[in-house]
Amino acid sequence: MTMIAAEMLEAYPADLGGVDRRKLAECIQACFSCAQACTACADACLSEDHVAMLVKCIRSDLDCADICSATGQVLSRHTGYDANLTRSMLEACATACKSCGDVCAEHTGMAHCEHCAEQCRACERACRELLASLD
Amino acid sequence: MTMIAAEMLEAYPADLGGVDRRKLAECIQACFSCAQACTACADACLSEDHVAMLVKCIRSDLDCADICSATGQVLSRHTGYDANLTRSMLEACATACKSCGDVCAEHTGMAHCEHCAEQCRACERACRELLASLD
Amino acid sequence: MTMIAAEMLEAYPADLGGVDRRKLAECIQACFSCAQACTACADACLSEDHVAMLVKCIRSDLDCADICSATGQVLSRHTGYDANLTRSMLEACATACKSCGDVCAEHTGMAHCEHCAEQCRACERACRELLASLD
Amino acid sequence: MTMIAAEMLEAYPADLGGVDRRKLAECIQACFSCAQACTACADACLSEDHVAMLVKCIRSDLDCADICSATGQVLSRHTGYDANLTRSMLEACATACKSCGDVCAEHTGMAHCEHCAEQCRACERACRELLASLD
Repeated sequence: MTMIAAEMLEAYPADLGGVDRRKLAECIQACFSCAQACTACADACLSEDHVAMLVKCIRSDLDCADICSATGQVLSRHTGYDANLTRSMLEACATACKSCGDVCAEHTGMAHCEHCAEQCRACERACRELLASLD
Repeated sequence: MTMIAAEMLEAYPADLGGVDRRKLAECIQACFSCAQACTACADACLSEDHVAMLVKCIRSDLDCADICSATGQVLSRHTGYDANLTRSMLEACATACKSCGDVCAEHTGMAHCEHCAEQCRACERACRELLASLD
Repeated sequence: MTMIAAEMLEAYPADLGGVDRRKLAECIQACFSCAQACTACADACLSEDHVAMLVKCIRSDLDCADICSATGQVLSRHTGYDANLTRSMLEACATACKSCGDVCAEHTGMAHCEHCAEQCRACERACRELLASLD
Repeated sequence: MTMIAAEMLEAYPADLGGVDRRKLAECIQACFSCAQACTACADACLSEDHVAMLVKCIRSDLDCADICSATGQVLSRHTGYDANLTRSMLEACATACKSCGDVCAEHTGMAHCEHCAEQCRACERACRELLASLD
């Protein structure tokens, strides 16, 4: 999907200001991938026998999925580019990914949580790198 | 809809920590109402003859709608309550509402922008009041 | 919120074709209210001691919330009005609401499921009434 | 992203019924990619000089993005698997993608519309193939 986000950026008919296109494409892709992984992880947790021990993980997954989706949408609207708004969504998204990644990372042995933690870490990193490049 | 959000909070089987239930219900309702108004306003702008002069407004509307939706969802998940996450989403939502409300407020004479600006102001206020009550 | 959706429809600068404005405003409102109730119900279920017996309900709630949100957004974009698309989303939304309402209605004694079932029934009805008026 | 959706399916702790895992993973990925492309295309259209001639395209993009997002979320919740619901969302999503793909395909010469049309065609095809495999 990086390729598609990058292609869409390439096809953009206006200037993108000083935004780093590669970092932006990677962050968009990471947001969508993380939203998918979190939604799937919440559902996988609901299929586990010990679901009662996983309610915190399910909630983190659901919050993280909603926030990553919204951030991916906002970042896909490249122009008219409102730096304050972009920054505050990237902060919120990095916070959600850190929190969800920490919860999932505790669940070694459950492959869905391990994969999900990886996506959360990658998305948190992509948000922070894009944030740093905006300053 | 305040009534529904309030009813759902009333029916909640667990403790809500120190969160002010009235402020929370009002903020949830404001987020959903603002998301609806912004989506409808973007579409109404697309129907105006001078759409080319309204592209900034359309983009603000779309960003604000996505962020208000996500914030309304996160706030509707009352427990497992992660104060950092709630706070950062409320900040992002207040920023989006401020920005979109300012753009729409310039368009006096277009009823859809006037109504939308009102919803943005109300949602920004509800986010800031809930934020203040969390400290 | 009916008032807001109705106000936005009133402010619409173009023709709405033959769509019944009252039924449309009611359906938009019902979609947003049902999305909120379903999200809150899923979270309330996660707080119940017997969460393991509620996983089907949680999944129905989450699916129904996502579908109601998308339907509310699509209906809020009144023009350019694509009857096939509107119809297929209203069908999907009525199906989701029927299914989620049935699951929640079995859980008498849990106020959050009772309220949620009511919202699902109301949203299913609003979707079917709008569908009937489009033919 | 196919890889991630496929990995999450691989990690799923329960049975998936008779669903074709490869087709499901491809459809999930296609939904998220199409949602991204449509959001970016709507924004690119808003940057074109002749935006007034593109309002139908912008609306199709926005509807298609919302429906693809919701479909991707519903499909990512693999279990508790409600065939009626899955089918009606896949129908709605194929309808949205067909409609948006047709509108974008008319705009040869605008790279964002060409890329978006490709994603819409791919997503429509993935939805129809998954639908066919469910019967």
